[in-house]
Amino acid sequence: MLTNIPSRADIISAHHRIKPYINRTPVLTSQTFNALFSSSLFFKCENFQKAGAFKSRGAVNLVFSLNENDAKNGVCTHSSGNHAQALARAAQIRKIPSYIVMPSNSPKVKINAVREYGGQIHFCDPNLAARESTLLKVQKETGAFEVHPYNNFSIIAAQASASVEMFEDINEQLDLLLCPVGGGGLLSGTALGTHYFSKKTHVIACEPQGADDAYRSFKKGEIIPSLNPNTIADGLLTSLGSKNFPIIQKYVNDIVTVNENSIIKAMRLIFERMKIIVEPSSAVPLAAILENKIDVINKKVGIILSGGNVDLSELPFWK
Amino acid sequence: MLTNIPSRADIISAHHRIKPYINRTPVLTSQTFNALFSSSLFFKCENFQKAGAFKSRGAVNLVFSLNENDAKNGVCTHSSGNHAQALARAAQIRKIPSYIVMPSNSPKVKINAVREYGGQIHFCDPNLAARESTLLKVQKETGAFEVHPYNNFSIIAAQASASVEMFEDINEQLDLLLCPVGGGGLLSGTALGTHYFSKKTHVIACEPQGADDAYRSFKKGEIIPSLNPNTIADGLLTSLGSKNFPIIQKYVNDIVTVNENSIIKAMRLIFERMKIIVEPSSAVPLAAILENKIDVINKKVGIILSGGNVDLSELPFWK
Repeated sequence: MLTNIPSRADIISAHHRIKPYINRTPVLTSQTFNALFSSSLFFKCENFQKAGAFKSRGAVNLVFSLNENDAKNGVCTHSSGNHAQALARAAQIRKIPSYIVMPSNSPKVKINAVREYGGQIHFCDPNLAARESTLLKVQKETGAFEVHPYNNFSIIAAQASASVEMFEDINEQLDLLLCPVGGGGLLSGTALGTHYFSKKTHVIACEPQGADDAYRSFKKGEIIPSLNPNTIADGLLTSLGSKNFPIIQKYVNDIVTVNENSIIKAMRLIFERMKIIVEPSSAVPLAAILENKIDVINKKVGIILSGGNVDLSELPFWK
Repeated sequence: MLTNIPSRADIISAHHRIKPYINRTPVLTSQTFNALFSSSLFFKCENFQKAGAFKSRGAVNLVFSLNENDAKNGVCTHSSGNHAQALARAAQIRKIPSYIVMPSNSPKVKINAVREYGGQIHFCDPNLAARESTLLKVQKETGAFEVHPYNNFSIIAAQASASVEMFEDINEQLDLLLCPVGGGGLLSGTALGTHYFSKKTHVIACEPQGADDAYRSFKKGEIIPSLNPNTIADGLLTSLGSKNFPIIQKYVNDIVTVNENSIIKAMRLIFERMKIIVEPSSAVPLAAILENKIDVINKKVGIILSGGNVDLSELPFWK
């Protein structure tokens, strides 16, 4: 497991390690969007990733980086979202147990997905204190290795691989690369990947106004934790990690925020025009373009669609 | 314009003609589905086709097959669905006018799409008599060439190209090719394409029970028009065409029917597992697999996803 900010070689090595177990997701373009925004947009479709989100990259890398001793009692985490599924799947592939602490109000579809991947679920009250104390108990009982969803250099190195694949697959130099930010795992990885493999590309993070701790932390120069975050982009509710923040400070060019209406509008545009399913978090960068927060005119712009796990019975679309 | 059942050469020629103006849509696979059904399924994604459905193939071929004289006053049709958009788009590319008769209760999203492609809309009462009489009036006033959505050999030849692309792109011989059936344009084209380019593949048509005129016609050996068809698969409400039926009789191996619940279940499975948007008509073949109407075990099975134009504010998903 990595104990320092990933090097170029660390990222290549992580990518190599996870390749057999993840999808090399496609990069899609849309003539409609290009015309609409006078831009060339390239969408990296991590919604088509294993377990439906980029989180599979980090989870697989971490689980396969553990030595025999660390791995022997399995892995554990608390998560109500994509990390839970991704970790359960990675553990299943390595044939070790996984223990997932989930809030009792987690969507049934996510609970079922974790179970399908062989994860053993421990329910807890839906608050951070209960999640952490339950995880501690589970960890003590099982001896499982705790896997943080983003505040971990091996996770960061693997999340970088999505951007590395983009640079390999797009035969043009990107001017901008847009990435949503929650805890900062994908963003710090993307920023490092861009630094090492496409130095001229500017990385711009996009964040919901209702969960703008990364924006405020970036502007102030120190981590300001999220207080009562509230956004439809449920993947972006978490606060920046201490290992992610210094990388973001150094290698991210800017952070912009967007409102909820724009996120829903962008999500609907992606559904209707690209005919693909994305979760609200994935729509945040396009929302920033819709709000004119980022100048994309005549630019080549990469956008990471982070995942596609959305409750279809609660889509925010109305007439 | 073709006046006989398309030959192998006619299909190749149609494909060549339309190639610059359509997408070569991808063939997707899903390990989840393959495990679930003990089968190898290959999905031809016409939901990613221009204007969101396979109809663009036929419309482009017909519009570009017209001689100068037939084309000079533009084209017209009546349609509430994908044919309207596809024809308006094809006419726009050839720079001729298009006149589209649409029922006054057509979904706003479809009306807007036709207008975006430069189609001139004439609204009428929402019944077949009003549609036909309004179209006749428009046709007389404008001198536009009437384009039937499916009962036309040039349309059929072009719809065949979706199956031809599948046979080219899948490096395995398909045992079965499943295709939804409404008016029979896609099905007759698919059956011909399979006959000429993958003779050992069996073509099975899939139809909603609530609009089962193709099933009944096929079994009886004569066209039985649809009476009060009712299904969520709004692309499959039309009755079989006289030019389509003989081809279907000769080259389709079987027709099976499915219920509405299976269609919705299959649609949801495609949304959730493949992360792509399809319209209900596209889900009918997978519904037939869910209902065990077709034996797919250990078989290589192609499925044509006919389109992705669905009203997101009226998705049939509930908790």
